[in-house]
Amino acid sequence: MNEIKVIEGGVTAAKGFKAAGAYAGIGKNAEKGDLALLYSEVPGNAAAVYTKNKVKAAHIAVTKDHLQDGVAQAIICNSGNANTCTPNGVEIAQKETELVAEALGIKAADVLPAATGVIGVPLEIAPFENTIPELAEKLSPEGSAQAADAIRTTDTYIKECAVTFELNGKTCTIGGIAKGSGMIHVNMGTMLSFIGTDVKISKELVQKALSDEILDSYNQVSVDGDTSTNDTVVVVANGLAGNEEITEPGDDYKKFCDALHIVAVDLSQKIAGDGEGCEKLLEAHVTGAPDKDGARKVAKSVICSSLFKAAVFASDANWGRILCAIGYADCDFDASNIDVSVCSATGTVEVCKGSASVPFDDDFATKVMSEKKVTVEIDLHDGEEEAYAWGCDLTYKYVEINGSYRS
Amino acid sequence: MNEIKVIEGGVTAAKGFKAAGAYAGIGKNAEKGDLALLYSEVPGNAAAVYTKNKVKAAHIAVTKDHLQDGVAQAIICNSGNANTCTPNGVEIAQKETELVAEALGIKAADVLPAATGVIGVPLEIAPFENTIPELAEKLSPEGSAQAADAIRTTDTYIKECAVTFELNGKTCTIGGIAKGSGMIHVNMGTMLSFIGTDVKISKELVQKALSDEILDSYNQVSVDGDTSTNDTVVVVANGLAGNEEITEPGDDYKKFCDALHIVAVDLSQKIAGDGEGCEKLLEAHVTGAPDKDGARKVAKSVICSSLFKAAVFASDANWGRILCAIGYADCDFDASNIDVSVCSATGTVEVCKGSASVPFDDDFATKVMSEKKVTVEIDLHDGEEEAYAWGCDLTYKYVEINGSYRS
Repeated sequence: MNEIKVIEGGVTAAKGFKAAGAYAGIGKNAEKGDLALLYSEVPGNAAAVYTKNKVKAAHIAVTKDHLQDGVAQAIICNSGNANTCTPNGVEIAQKETELVAEALGIKAADVLPAATGVIGVPLEIAPFENTIPELAEKLSPEGSAQAADAIRTTDTYIKECAVTFELNGKTCTIGGIAKGSGMIHVNMGTMLSFIGTDVKISKELVQKALSDEILDSYNQVSVDGDTSTNDTVVVVANGLAGNEEITEPGDDYKKFCDALHIVAVDLSQKIAGDGEGCEKLLEAHVTGAPDKDGARKVAKSVICSSLFKAAVFASDANWGRILCAIGYADCDFDASNIDVSVCSATGTVEVCKGSASVPFDDDFATKVMSEKKVTVEIDLHDGEEEAYAWGCDLTYKYVEINGSYRS
Repeated sequence: MNEIKVIEGGVTAAKGFKAAGAYAGIGKNAEKGDLALLYSEVPGNAAAVYTKNKVKAAHIAVTKDHLQDGVAQAIICNSGNANTCTPNGVEIAQKETELVAEALGIKAADVLPAATGVIGVPLEIAPFENTIPELAEKLSPEGSAQAADAIRTTDTYIKECAVTFELNGKTCTIGGIAKGSGMIHVNMGTMLSFIGTDVKISKELVQKALSDEILDSYNQVSVDGDTSTNDTVVVVANGLAGNEEITEPGDDYKKFCDALHIVAVDLSQKIAGDGEGCEKLLEAHVTGAPDKDGARKVAKSVICSSLFKAAVFASDANWGRILCAIGYADCDFDASNIDVSVCSATGTVEVCKGSASVPFDDDFATKVMSEKKVTVEIDLHDGEEEAYAWGCDLTYKYVEINGSYRS
């Protein structure tokens, strides 16, 4: 087996991972869980990336501290409260890890805290004290969906992905969960995403793989241009697959990265496609760019344009707005020879050639734009590099959700 | 008289300026004009700034060319068609200037073309041929409002401002018009704004005054984060006030700049307050910043946040979103000691102190946020610099307008 196969499941798909979720009373919605616990039977080499927002959630300081040794065994994550801009946030996050350590009989320094929700409301420790023992009890290899549900805020569905592949004859798995929806303009990590793998890989390489990977997956997602204070992606590699440890960037490392890419892109698309109030997943694919970073910026600029996002909502192939968004991207290229097509399951329509209008069938274009996933293909004809970005349409519902979030 | 006084009127308020507007059949809405002509009885020293979007309207190339000598006498501007990404755009824009030159008996090189509207639809010359002679006939010192109306697209009201002041005992006037509404995220010029003044000032200094001025007025406006392909601000100074020519940056130059600032900020606020679909003018005032550019970026980041804009629509003092937007602004400052208040005609509410929550009366905060103009006061406590930025709330109507713009 040489290929990478997408399988059912999420963060517990790999060997030795368990998860659970429960309602602890932190969030207001008792219909769903608000506290998730992820656990690996053995400590794993772990890597994380965080938001670049200067206003950071308190949990990030604790997670960074606990990851100094590159090892983690559990993650505790609540929704309903961001634990950001609160007076005692770090203390609470630290205490959470101690409660988990006690319940699981592991080291507090191997527990990573995370949080998402409203900013500026002090977080109490009582819900954690009451619920962590129950979560520890409930931990199971089937708990991924429950955990993914517990970290949701305005997400409308849970986000899981898992893949298997072989390394030296051993079956390896990478699986993850994520939450998205609002305040999504990823610059570093994403909202929250937790990935578990049984691949044996060194601390250095798992961090390198994650840091490189986010550039073309999580960092290319935007729902609303707002980079959250809480963005965090964590990968825990517990080594239980039994492959020879990956210690340098050879073929095995490449395969690991390819598999990680599939999981990360899938979760990224799920985050974008479930953007607050959205009806469609919007993908931009830029080719012919002079450099990789420029390709990323042009793709992201298109999926971030409020004007084009509103046009996508209306299934309007308003390519002038695409050209406009390409033009203000921070990338140095020749803007005189741009081709643009819109594509979906219905078909493909070329709407702009050589940076000028071409005749096209407006009714068919509307049909193409009416699908649940719409891709904009952009060829800059000024180089060899390409990149993708993912966003969503801008809808009445987005305004409604965000005009009434706190109440 | 030492002060600068706001007076009635717009781009024709200064001596020697005339304007007219008419419906030429370029736009679809025959209820309003779509072609404006501005004229100065004598050629004036002129300065312009343009969009930084790499995809530029065709008229910009012609305007740049005609302004190489720093002199202009007339501006011809249509709405309903951006003359952008069209095969013959430059040719059409050039031809427009020749038609104006012929009708007015002036040099085509002293005529500046401008346009706004849909991107990518070829522009015909016939409407200009048919309407420019009529416009030349109609030119009048009372024509500013008519011209301001003709350049509107989705703007709901016309935008004019004028001020008078004295230089060496001579009454001087600066007046302008602008259009705004959508695709507004100014980075260099603005949508379209034309300013006429009778001040006698050298070409170099009128350009310097404009280039400096836009940093704290037009460039601090954002409706939707989309930098247009057509942004242009032009100032024509015809010298008819009879003051001693301003040739160096002394007291007279400072007074000219102060007066220009009042006009530019007033028009900027009118653009922001008439953002597509908006109900409120949102102002951010940042103080205590380590540097001027950083102060501007933080202010602009807050008025650009889709999440906070939606909260403003709902009159929700959701300060966590303000902190989030401050935190992702590209400015280096200490994020641990930020104070935030929301203010309006109703009063002031402190919502965040030392980057943490403070108790406040939610009902009163909602009343404060319900006014037509809402100001967010932000003190970073990390320096002496300050800046303003202007935006608007994000509403259902914005989505509606932009989901149906072309149809």
